[in-house]
Amino acid sequence: MGKSKASLEQLVIGIDIGGTGTKFGIVDRVGNVLFSSEISTKKHTEIETFIDELHDSLIPLIEKAGGIGRIKGIGVGAPNGNYYTGTIEYAPNLPWKGIIPLSKIIQDKFKLPVVLTNDANAAALGEMMYGAAQGMNDFIMITLGTGVGSGIVANGKLIYGHDGFAGELGHTIIIPDGRLHPGTGKKGSLESYASATGVTLTALETLEKSKTPSLLRKVAKKDMDSKAVYIAAMEGDELAKQIFEYTGKILGMALANFVMFSSPEAIVLFGGLTKAGDLILKPTREHMEANLIQVFQNKVKILVSHLRESDAAILGASALVWDIQ
Amino acid sequence: MGKSKASLEQLVIGIDIGGTGTKFGIVDRVGNVLFSSEISTKKHTEIETFIDELHDSLIPLIEKAGGIGRIKGIGVGAPNGNYYTGTIEYAPNLPWKGIIPLSKIIQDKFKLPVVLTNDANAAALGEMMYGAAQGMNDFIMITLGTGVGSGIVANGKLIYGHDGFAGELGHTIIIPDGRLHPGTGKKGSLESYASATGVTLTALETLEKSKTPSLLRKVAKKDMDSKAVYIAAMEGDELAKQIFEYTGKILGMALANFVMFSSPEAIVLFGGLTKAGDLILKPTREHMEANLIQVFQNKVKILVSHLRESDAAILGASALVWDIQ
Repeated sequence: MGKSKASLEQLVIGIDIGGTGTKFGIVDRVGNVLFSSEISTKKHTEIETFIDELHDSLIPLIEKAGGIGRIKGIGVGAPNGNYYTGTIEYAPNLPWKGIIPLSKIIQDKFKLPVVLTNDANAAALGEMMYGAAQGMNDFIMITLGTGVGSGIVANGKLIYGHDGFAGELGHTIIIPDGRLHPGTGKKGSLESYASATGVTLTALETLEKSKTPSLLRKVAKKDMDSKAVYIAAMEGDELAKQIFEYTGKILGMALANFVMFSSPEAIVLFGGLTKAGDLILKPTREHMEANLIQVFQNKVKILVSHLRESDAAILGASALVWDIQ
Repeated sequence: MGKSKASLEQLVIGIDIGGTGTKFGIVDRVGNVLFSSEISTKKHTEIETFIDELHDSLIPLIEKAGGIGRIKGIGVGAPNGNYYTGTIEYAPNLPWKGIIPLSKIIQDKFKLPVVLTNDANAAALGEMMYGAAQGMNDFIMITLGTGVGSGIVANGKLIYGHDGFAGELGHTIIIPDGRLHPGTGKKGSLESYASATGVTLTALETLEKSKTPSLLRKVAKKDMDSKAVYIAAMEGDELAKQIFEYTGKILGMALANFVMFSSPEAIVLFGGLTKAGDLILKPTREHMEANLIQVFQNKVKILVSHLRESDAAILGASALVWDIQ
């Protein structure tokens, strides 16, 4: 019996904690999400009740997958998650304030090894193991969602930095004295432009500054979002196209800077904004190339993640576990 | 006899190729430059005559150090030197154009293993082995000379990138549509502001824009340089101090971006501009902190290299060799 158990394939658990919901699933070595589910993050103002619900929801999945004996460990991706300390530190979008020793809490609850990192680093690992960055030793992952996250791989390893917080490319300053970021108080960061929020702001500003007719003028201010801009652009609206062009210009300039830092083989983009396709990718590529010095030109790929959005977060978090010795 | 030879300490050769001169020396394990000398780079329009003179000048040093049998290998730092290919590629400041297979040429001449990288990467290795970054796994080295060079260490290793060209931080864009860089044709790069050349340009621009009296108004345009600005600032000249303040503002903003990329324990500065001391370091620190998001604030050291300038380049290049298996 011991023998047959040992011969069973090992599995890992991936947990992706977001501001609204938490997704989790059981993953095999080749990246199949065998069983998965989701709970609310938001409604749990206390970490204890969150962990209780997570446990109650995961246990049935573990049983279906053949029991706890098959699980090698738990990987967790969370905003401001720190790989070195296993803590979540001052995450502005999570309900739990201060420093939360998340790895320890989950480990005590499940009696399994736990590895934590921030959500964007987890996404980069997921791409490296199962996605667009397979076989690459040097690449940068950028998530273009409500905000801009990033994970950087160099020499085949994630860059965590001396304190575990490396890879905050969304907060790099691209336009000195540019747009104020309400969350950080800093001006001109990439996230203030190249996120869904940034596109909305660009849309509102562009409509106010110009007198060009546009389908977007029919959208109420409070309803303006990147999806509305996308729909208008797909219908040929010039102003809407300009908004993506401007977003791509700033993103491209930022990507050029990142390339001149770590000279990656590829930049992998992920998240809502990538759905705009060439509307944003074309200007991004153009402006990246225009800002690169010669030695870097025409050799860095800009790829869009092809992992299913519903699986990617779980896969990324689960990928952390395979490295445990 | 074989035994006594084997017990002799191994030595390495470091060669630093600059646009004007080439320095080289024989270095022991703890970073003593035992014998060193220098030849002109500039006067050799052909690589062959350069290598011949280098050979003729190095052989006597090797003999003094106990003969070729004691030498483990040769490390070379050169502009646009590529670690992976051992070639110098399109170096604008060297007399030899195109792609030069430098490692192979030196190896054939000396019959010793050769490792090549760019000069700023070599400098970073030197700091890691013998200088301000000893014991650090994550730091960034920035050389502030005529231009701005950089070497980045993360997870204890130099970042070379997929093609060997990583770490061109001097060419990152800090001021979109800013000053034109005559060498690259790009606008607003760090090098256009935070180099000796950049300080000179800032001085000329500042004098033209303002009417404030200044000691610098006595300096002829063609004689203006960062040293003149330094001397004026040390005599209390307000305009000269403003010039360093402005330079530090831009450098600080750039350093903040670099910190949010790789979260280094320290940034090590080296080169002519650092001689201005707090005139430039104080505004650099202030503006770096002002542009960092909270999680990075007040924990990244800005250090100035304490290696002797005459030795640093040789030490850096020599440090490459100890890693050869």
